[in-house]
Formats: sequence, C-alpha cells, structure tokens
Amino acid sequence: MNAHWIGTLASALTTIAFVPQAWKVWKTRSTHDLSLPMYSIFTTGVALWLVYGVMIGSWPIIVGNAITVVLAGSVQAMKLNFS
Amino acid sequence: MNAHWIGTLASALTTIAFVPQAWKVWKTRSTHDLSLPMYSIFTTGVALWLVYGVMIGSWPIIVGNAITVVLAGSVQAMKLNFS
Repeated sequence: MNAHWIGTLASALTTIAFVPQAWKVWKTRSTHDLSLPMYSIFTTGVALWLVYGVMIGSWPIIVGNAITVVLAGSVQAMKLNFS
Repeated sequence: MNAHWIGTLASALTTIAFVPQAWKVWKTRSTHDLSLPMYSIFTTGVALWLVYGVMIGSWPIIVGNAITVVLAGSVQAMKLNFS
C-alpha cells in the first residue's frame, strides 16, 4: 500500500472517530468528563493541520482536517452549551 | 511562516490537547461521557498517521503522532479500566 492510501485511511479514521463522540454528547447532553482545554487546543491544532495540508498540497491532510475541525468544533460547542 | 513551522505548531497542539483530557480522566476516574469507539478508532488512525509520516518523511507528522498515540491510547486504556 502506498503512502497516499495509508494517509487517506489514517485521515478517514481520525476524522470518523469524532462521529460517535459527537453523537454520544448530542444524545446524552452530558459533557462532564470531556476536557474543555482538550477540545479548544485540539480544534485550533486541526485548523492549523488544514493550513499545513494546503501548503504542502496533501489531499488526505486537507480533506480529513476540514471535516475534523467541524466535528471536534461541534463537540467543543456542545461542551460549552450543555455544561 | 513556512509549512514546516505551521505543521510543527499544528502537531504540537493536536498532541498537547490530549494531556488535559488524560489528566482529567486520571484524576476523576470518570469516563462515562467519553466515547470508546472514538478512542478505539482515533488511536488506530493516529498509528496510521505515524506510518504515513515515516513514508513521506514528515517530521511534524512523525513526532506528533508518536506522542499522540501514547496519550490517546492511555485515555482509551483508562476508559476500558475505569468503566
């Protein structure tokens, strides 16, 4: 398997991972165990990964992080609103 | 700022992000709101990012994901053991 496909699979997994977390928080409205600093720092970092992906022209990094910033950002928004 | 430094900063943030989450879980022993599927899928994805980083020779990707796999893996292990 070449690097492009490893990167695409990695990107798909680290992106999809936030779907069950976002769904769990949406369903339970419970965010007590989630760390707000984690989501604040993580979402900022993912936004910078997106910039990095654009700069080096890596599609797995661009697409994955564009979706992840929305998913992780939504968990962060629910943490702020449901607490 | 060039791509190398954007990537290094992005990597530092998405890695450091898991420190407050791991610390919160260690301190409270409470993992109810954390999604196990999230951490299982995410840790697998981060391990693949590490492989991708090695294949394309990107140090920000390699170093960040090597540390993140340990931090996210430890949150996953605590989720499994404290539940």
